[in-house]
Amino acid sequence: MAFASQLGLSGQRLGVTYRLQGSEQEARAKAEDICLEQTVEFPRDLLPAGDICEHLVGRIEALVADSPGSCQATISFALETTGLMLPQLLNVVFGNISMKPGIRVEWLDLPESLLGAFKGPRFGRAGLRERLGVRQRPLLCAVLKMMGASPRELAEQAYCYALGGADLIKDDHGLADQSFAPFRERVERCAEAVRRANRETGLNSLYLANVLVPSDRVAESARFAKEVGAGGLLVCAGILGWDTLRSLAGDDQLGLPIMAHPSFLGNYGINLTNGISYFALYGQIARLAGADAIAFPNHGGRFAYTRHDCIEITRGTQVEMGRLAPIFPAPGGGLKLERMPDILSLYGRDVILLVGGDLHRRSPDLVKNSRYFREMLENA
Amino acid sequence: MAFASQLGLSGQRLGVTYRLQGSEQEARAKAEDICLEQTVEFPRDLLPAGDICEHLVGRIEALVADSPGSCQATISFALETTGLMLPQLLNVVFGNISMKPGIRVEWLDLPESLLGAFKGPRFGRAGLRERLGVRQRPLLCAVLKMMGASPRELAEQAYCYALGGADLIKDDHGLADQSFAPFRERVERCAEAVRRANRETGLNSLYLANVLVPSDRVAESARFAKEVGAGGLLVCAGILGWDTLRSLAGDDQLGLPIMAHPSFLGNYGINLTNGISYFALYGQIARLAGADAIAFPNHGGRFAYTRHDCIEITRGTQVEMGRLAPIFPAPGGGLKLERMPDILSLYGRDVILLVGGDLHRRSPDLVKNSRYFREMLENA
Repeated sequence: MAFASQLGLSGQRLGVTYRLQGSEQEARAKAEDICLEQTVEFPRDLLPAGDICEHLVGRIEALVADSPGSCQATISFALETTGLMLPQLLNVVFGNISMKPGIRVEWLDLPESLLGAFKGPRFGRAGLRERLGVRQRPLLCAVLKMMGASPRELAEQAYCYALGGADLIKDDHGLADQSFAPFRERVERCAEAVRRANRETGLNSLYLANVLVPSDRVAESARFAKEVGAGGLLVCAGILGWDTLRSLAGDDQLGLPIMAHPSFLGNYGINLTNGISYFALYGQIARLAGADAIAFPNHGGRFAYTRHDCIEITRGTQVEMGRLAPIFPAPGGGLKLERMPDILSLYGRDVILLVGGDLHRRSPDLVKNSRYFREMLENA
Repeated sequence: MAFASQLGLSGQRLGVTYRLQGSEQEARAKAEDICLEQTVEFPRDLLPAGDICEHLVGRIEALVADSPGSCQATISFALETTGLMLPQLLNVVFGNISMKPGIRVEWLDLPESLLGAFKGPRFGRAGLRERLGVRQRPLLCAVLKMMGASPRELAEQAYCYALGGADLIKDDHGLADQSFAPFRERVERCAEAVRRANRETGLNSLYLANVLVPSDRVAESARFAKEVGAGGLLVCAGILGWDTLRSLAGDDQLGLPIMAHPSFLGNYGINLTNGISYFALYGQIARLAGADAIAFPNHGGRFAYTRHDCIEITRGTQVEMGRLAPIFPAPGGGLKLERMPDILSLYGRDVILLVGGDLHRRSPDLVKNSRYFREMLENA
């Protein structure tokens, strides 16, 4: 079998830094395997001479022990392996090796030429603040509760949240398209309720509609949400695919802010010896896909995320990525707003705070409860 | 906040059996948490009376210690929580709890009323055998190598494989839409080459085109593949989303067999204390999505899958699921066909064997090499 020796490669490469379990020798063997597995999937001794062998397979750029029993290896790949598109980029970075133990993606180093192929977040932090008309303080996102509530009940809730000054009002991620709250009716009623409240308050609260519907109906459902006045979308990227989020974010006709939700993604981050770091997944990849905010569990709540995990996510939301805007970290999952000093010291003011159960716990008056939390943020 | 007390629920429930790390007491606490987290995401003490509290939240049906330090818990959910659609089903089964440690989905127990909402595999084992005209023996799937090859080179390879009698010929999963092998040109040339070989052999080899393209181009790319004569599709469900596979499988105009590829899915299975079992993910979920075959690494190859893992996958491909057809396990990843007795004892004859590098290693004559492997299967 003959192969062409020249592929017209640009010479540009992207870098991926992996944490590899094992001694330096074991880690080097893993790194060498990654170079092949993520590109040609072919034995090195059978590779044809020329560009494939010399440039297309991954290249170990650095390998250093970072603790007893693990190493950090930076591997570069020819830009062209990715086809300059997100699905194949994810495939090169972590496709097959997701099935091999002891490999964790720590961070991506993407050249301008690759970043330039992505629109990234349409709004980002600055754009979302502009749309909301809120300059500096942390933002409040109230969560519509709960699965089982009817569209009327959810809309009434959305109305109260907006009246109380919640900046964003998002569907609980379990509100999909169920018999007791069909997608269209829910979204239409909630969008209308928030619009009505905005007229009364003079504020610009945005309702984020969860488009967790069959994949062949996501685009039309998002358009419907926009038509009936939803102010943004909630997208479960782990279920619908990161590239579905990208295609929604990149749709100029749609032009809505998007919050990514981490449902079904936990397994990438939960074991330190495998997967993809929170920095890379919730920061870099979410931004490449074009999310304007990434929801995740705050430390100390219902989930097992550590303070360090939250710091890493926040770093990823703002690390330099060419012209791709920084995005909002949106911690939730049992967040206690009473712990505001800790929240501010961790996230700073560029943060969206997700509050659900606590908005209902304070008192039966959701307007008052929302106002209470909003004032807490205004005074933060 | 008032909620309706009646939701018009059918009373039907789906069951999910989880393996939970911890003592029986800890596991029970985890199970109780799952009941809420996967449905209402709301504190139990604040739940409204009526259907939400009594029927919509998950219900622990059984909890037994299965080894020191872990328990199996079966939790049932009201059918309506899933909206009878795959994205929300995955969300209920494992969405938020993917972010909590020590929880693994072992298997799903889906009632007919839920299974009936899914078309499932269009071909399955019997349908694919019929299309290929091969009754009983194991099937040979040759893999087009490699990233960096041109469409002409790949088509020449496909032609040789088909001439040598490979039943299926699949794109390597790293062949996406790159400058050196654009999707349309690659698929058109490969489909044509296999058609040409079929005319010479009188066989009916099928070329499976990898539709790893941006999500908003997947459907049109699949249609293009069909138009130019591709015999089936390869779908990286972990990247494009399981429901994208479902929408392709369910498309009557398309009507092509689909092999699911496990790229980017490894993290769900790799740690025994987290994620989703191979049985449930590669068996039950792949079938719900409508895959006709599931590719995965055979034990003893380049990956760390054990013999037990492969047995579990195979069990999942054929376990009773209402009218959903059994599908082909398609082991690869460094499969040695010389180990045929082991392969047969593990998988039986209803198996697709993926062969890539070994087809190139035997000799430079790919027709002869393919014929060699095919004869090995005819005599198996």
